[in-house]
Amino acid sequence: MTPVRFPAHLKPHGPQGSDLLAQERQRATFDAKALTAKIYDQGELAKKKQILQVLTNDPILSDKSHRYFCGRDVRFSKAMQAAQRMAELIQKHKWTHEDVLMADLLFDEAGPFRLHRTMFMPTIEGQGTDEQKKLFLEPAQRYEIIGCYAQTELGHGSNVRGLETTATYDRLTGTFILHSPTLTASKWWIGGLGKTATHAVVMARLVINGKDLGPHTFVVQIRDLKTHEPLPGITVGDIGPKFGFSTVDNGFILFDKVRIPHISMMARFSKVDKATGDYIKPPNDKLSYGTMVFVRANIVIESRNILARAATVAIRYSSIRSQGADAANPKKMVVDGVTKIVETPVLDYMMQQYRLLPIVAQAYACHFTGKAMHRKYYENQARMAQGDFSFLADLHASSSGLKSLTTTIAVAAIEESRRACGGHGYLLASGLGQFYQDYLPKATWEGDNYLLTQQTTRYLLKTYRSIRAGKVPEKDQQTNFSVQYISDYLGNPGAKCSVATEADWTNPETLLSVFKNRVAYMIEQAVHDIDIDNRTWNDMLVEVYRISRAHCQLIMVSNFFQGVFSSDSDGLVRHALGDVALLYALTTLEQELADVLTSGFVTPAQASTLKKQVISVLKRVRPNAVALVDAFDFPDYLLNSALGSSDGYVYERLTQMAEQEPLNHTSVVHGYDDFYRPLIHAGQGNWQVDIRGVTSLCGYDIDSSSSKL
Amino acid sequence: MTPVRFPAHLKPHGPQGSDLLAQERQRATFDAKALTAKIYDQGELAKKKQILQVLTNDPILSDKSHRYFCGRDVRFSKAMQAAQRMAELIQKHKWTHEDVLMADLLFDEAGPFRLHRTMFMPTIEGQGTDEQKKLFLEPAQRYEIIGCYAQTELGHGSNVRGLETTATYDRLTGTFILHSPTLTASKWWIGGLGKTATHAVVMARLVINGKDLGPHTFVVQIRDLKTHEPLPGITVGDIGPKFGFSTVDNGFILFDKVRIPHISMMARFSKVDKATGDYIKPPNDKLSYGTMVFVRANIVIESRNILARAATVAIRYSSIRSQGADAANPKKMVVDGVTKIVETPVLDYMMQQYRLLPIVAQAYACHFTGKAMHRKYYENQARMAQGDFSFLADLHASSSGLKSLTTTIAVAAIEESRRACGGHGYLLASGLGQFYQDYLPKATWEGDNYLLTQQTTRYLLKTYRSIRAGKVPEKDQQTNFSVQYISDYLGNPGAKCSVATEADWTNPETLLSVFKNRVAYMIEQAVHDIDIDNRTWNDMLVEVYRISRAHCQLIMVSNFFQGVFSSDSDGLVRHALGDVALLYALTTLEQELADVLTSGFVTPAQASTLKKQVISVLKRVRPNAVALVDAFDFPDYLLNSALGSSDGYVYERLTQMAEQEPLNHTSVVHGYDDFYRPLIHAGQGNWQVDIRGVTSLCGYDIDSSSSKL
Repeated sequence: MTPVRFPAHLKPHGPQGSDLLAQERQRATFDAKALTAKIYDQGELAKKKQILQVLTNDPILSDKSHRYFCGRDVRFSKAMQAAQRMAELIQKHKWTHEDVLMADLLFDEAGPFRLHRTMFMPTIEGQGTDEQKKLFLEPAQRYEIIGCYAQTELGHGSNVRGLETTATYDRLTGTFILHSPTLTASKWWIGGLGKTATHAVVMARLVINGKDLGPHTFVVQIRDLKTHEPLPGITVGDIGPKFGFSTVDNGFILFDKVRIPHISMMARFSKVDKATGDYIKPPNDKLSYGTMVFVRANIVIESRNILARAATVAIRYSSIRSQGADAANPKKMVVDGVTKIVETPVLDYMMQQYRLLPIVAQAYACHFTGKAMHRKYYENQARMAQGDFSFLADLHASSSGLKSLTTTIAVAAIEESRRACGGHGYLLASGLGQFYQDYLPKATWEGDNYLLTQQTTRYLLKTYRSIRAGKVPEKDQQTNFSVQYISDYLGNPGAKCSVATEADWTNPETLLSVFKNRVAYMIEQAVHDIDIDNRTWNDMLVEVYRISRAHCQLIMVSNFFQGVFSSDSDGLVRHALGDVALLYALTTLEQELADVLTSGFVTPAQASTLKKQVISVLKRVRPNAVALVDAFDFPDYLLNSALGSSDGYVYERLTQMAEQEPLNHTSVVHGYDDFYRPLIHAGQGNWQVDIRGVTSLCGYDIDSSSSKL
Repeated sequence: MTPVRFPAHLKPHGPQGSDLLAQERQRATFDAKALTAKIYDQGELAKKKQILQVLTNDPILSDKSHRYFCGRDVRFSKAMQAAQRMAELIQKHKWTHEDVLMADLLFDEAGPFRLHRTMFMPTIEGQGTDEQKKLFLEPAQRYEIIGCYAQTELGHGSNVRGLETTATYDRLTGTFILHSPTLTASKWWIGGLGKTATHAVVMARLVINGKDLGPHTFVVQIRDLKTHEPLPGITVGDIGPKFGFSTVDNGFILFDKVRIPHISMMARFSKVDKATGDYIKPPNDKLSYGTMVFVRANIVIESRNILARAATVAIRYSSIRSQGADAANPKKMVVDGVTKIVETPVLDYMMQQYRLLPIVAQAYACHFTGKAMHRKYYENQARMAQGDFSFLADLHASSSGLKSLTTTIAVAAIEESRRACGGHGYLLASGLGQFYQDYLPKATWEGDNYLLTQQTTRYLLKTYRSIRAGKVPEKDQQTNFSVQYISDYLGNPGAKCSVATEADWTNPETLLSVFKNRVAYMIEQAVHDIDIDNRTWNDMLVEVYRISRAHCQLIMVSNFFQGVFSSDSDGLVRHALGDVALLYALTTLEQELADVLTSGFVTPAQASTLKKQVISVLKRVRPNAVALVDAFDFPDYLLNSALGSSDGYVYERLTQMAEQEPLNHTSVVHGYDDFYRPLIHAGQGNWQVDIRGVTSLCGYDIDSSSSKL
């Protein structure tokens, strides 16, 4: 009953993965470290190094070895332990908000205190009075109470207006009565609520004197602080197993006429007078849109990380995994001192490049757009502080569409990368499976990726109509990107794409003109369909989604070009990144070619040359593939991947990880006696003759090599 | 420490799911049962009913309740038990091969005996001599030996020619010496090998007198039949955790100069003379291509099941899940005896229809193509038996591309359906998460979905060149679909799409002409690129993939139209299915619009009307959505989904399943004392003042409602 071990003397067939990766790194036309220094600021890199040091030296947080091997029971228990440890480290090292974000990024596992930090405390911070902050925020900062954010209900997802939970004010006792009238009113999906939180921010419809005043925010204690038992009137628990996020106790809660004190309602903006029950409305809330822009800029940067991480694994492994030979271009390499023709790394096949290199390009595209959004957020905040709200609508509209676009491509990229790793991508040891499972909800939460695009397109159609009506303020014509490209379009009727040869597709201005014309044409058509042909908004939803996507692709291309071609960085880096920018623009355009052909802006002949330029630019980017992903500087601790580690020891790691499989702890599987032996031994009369006859020929003697029955 | 229970008196907010589904069923323009009778034959339906009865009454196999709640340890143990039970039922009820397939479909969980039945026994059946069948096949049929199929190696996936394992013949002892020279030579991914199989079919390079004769097939005993311990010289175990397939022990095996007897080599076709060591070559093996067609026809039918199952869950739930209101078309319904305006079921939103109804259409498209492939397989087998191989090349080429196309769309459909269920799609209770995880490898195995398309396109380019050279036999011009559409294209240079109005897009002949012209044009371009412009095959791989996909989409449209418009079925069914066929053709074409615009066959103006016709046909299919998925007749036992059950009790099931979550077995989570209490209780001095002050206001008294510290 010895555990299963691989023979120690065997090594993989050559060439070795480490040599192949080294060769890739030598081929690059630029220095990956110089690119790293361009995309991250020095403080960020220093912070990463320092926090990585703390985590990898911590006895609890350094250990990710159980993640691929354990069921939810063990994983949740380990997550509780990790949450406690992280809370201790935060206090011990006095980590800032940014430090904690970096630690979360590196540790790479959502835990039960996640919403406590990202939603519970910020809500009180933003919506609570000083008294409420003292009461709830201060102990929360010390983790003496643990909070969550309870908005979504079982029957009501993104639609806040559909919430059923009520908070009815009782003037006589000065309390609100929280109540869940139906099963579908149960709060549901609430991270950290299931088994962890002592308190919850609860969104409930405020009812005063029978009047429904819509959703308001309450902070409610839900569990006893000494025993952790649910308080009376409260039914609370975990919602059960999910596709990912095993380490978070997403929970449900139902209130059966639970009374909570007057101070529970967050009262910085709207309030209820304790004595009279009079309601005071919140002021107009344009400022909160600014915050949403910031949250979404972070989501775009996060999409960069997701795309880059998936590409890092798939590209490193595709440089090592070899298969067959490309007859036209056989690969030669020195193996064990002799130059040989070796199998072709799969990344040398054009189809593999076509699948993976655009993901690298998308990652860099998200990088430059995320950075641009941060800049614009601060610019807008400064303007709003001076009462200038002129940037807000455009910024908010674009940020909605960008959240949708970038999370959609990020989800697709993880899965494409996993599949591009062939069979081994399906092993959890690839590091891509659980990563996909845990990232996936991003496409649904923080605004559903389809619903969100309605905000973007509504704004664009409105802008188009204003321009046509000559109602756009002078200032917007100077500063508003959407106004500019729509106005350009209207000012140049019948314009055509200027491409004459395949090489013209490498002109950034030409590419930008195609993306601009595309969106403006689609907007014009949609306005016509709605205003002239009277098509309903519902009938237009497919087109509405497409317009938002097209607008945001334009923004991504524009920011990417600006970040690369207008910068003064190292010439080699700039040259390599320039090809990546073209790759992003060209592959995106190729996917969306039907739009520009339908508008007539691009001709069939131009479209044919574009497809060829895509292949040309892939070939130019190919030698830089590994350096481009190395530049993202993801430590192996983060990747947790046998296929994607920086040293290329793919097969050694895969076999080491197989040895850790619990089923391999014994040579004969537990359950053999109950389930297999009765079948196999039923025929002993038979096999004792036949199989012994066979096996004795090959030197095995069953009687001597095994125990008696 | 009582388990968590939902309050029994609460029910969901109205309208109830069951009422909404009933209303959907009433709206349909045809009888779902009539459609069921059209797509399945009576024997198949009777078999399903009978086997479902056996399974749902079986104490072991009826219970799927653990599947979403347990880690791999428990799931694998239950899978062993189920495998044993299934083996008993097969013998008890004398189930045929088709019966077993039906039982596997309904039970819906791959188990450790899977490859024993689908690969081990068929290989011996096909490649063994009578003596070998007696020795290995007969005990295998009685489950006295359990087999697996060991081909893939750690460093060598789809590329059989790269295999490293050798079987060197030793004439003196009349044995083969099986050996794994490197770590990458380890067999890997082998289903049932890890902990279960006693025997393996092993693919190894046959070496005689130092001459490498390439991969041959051996049957090898790997574990002791009495003790189940690995035999000497063998290292065997499980490869570790995967993205899905937890219930299969995919394994690895390494051979250290293991001697196996002469009879181990499957000798029906090629053989080694025992005494002399002379090698006898296998005969030319065109027949095995026929078998591959059959396997792939089954994969297309399986894709139908996958698509239909995903759509069943998402469409039923989308008829129930309601959100907001469509102002132009508010939904009214009788709730508790009163007609009210209610929230809009999300399936009424055009975007949701655009996401889901094409999946229903794809399912039916796979149905008709799978059936057509089965017919052609039998026709081809009959011809081959008479020495006529004229059908084979076309059939094999198309079947390769169809495997790639249909599994690719099936994988995408599960995920799109899951996401279209909003947040709750992420719950395993949706039935879509594990389903996706387990189905996913289909896109990689049985021929990688990218590699396979090279076979299809190579054949099409060759056919084009033969036609151009006037070298196509007269007979092929009569019977070969590819020859016909390419010849038509060449015979009608400069042909244009005949669409004048939006309604013309509902003409099946017109649609077919667009699909045909598209492929033929792409083939022509590719031949030009290769033969005239000297582009390498590697540079063409992206186009090669596209051509195969285009050819197979044409086949799917053609078979669908033939199955619907040329049939004499019930007029109402035919009418409803006709819209579904148009939906398949139109949405597929809309996705691929760039191709036909680039060729110039379709004009920009025609493309604009096509987009509008897509919306029109979606509206016509919408009322039939639930009936169309009901017709697939999937029992709730198979679906195992809270969202997709036939009765519509979505929210009741979700809460019942949450009650089963192991974390809910106690009200205070295990681990609280170790991990949370130290943090929360650290601040007792603090919260005893603040929080008690608060909680006492709402009627809670911490001291009385909880135990002492």
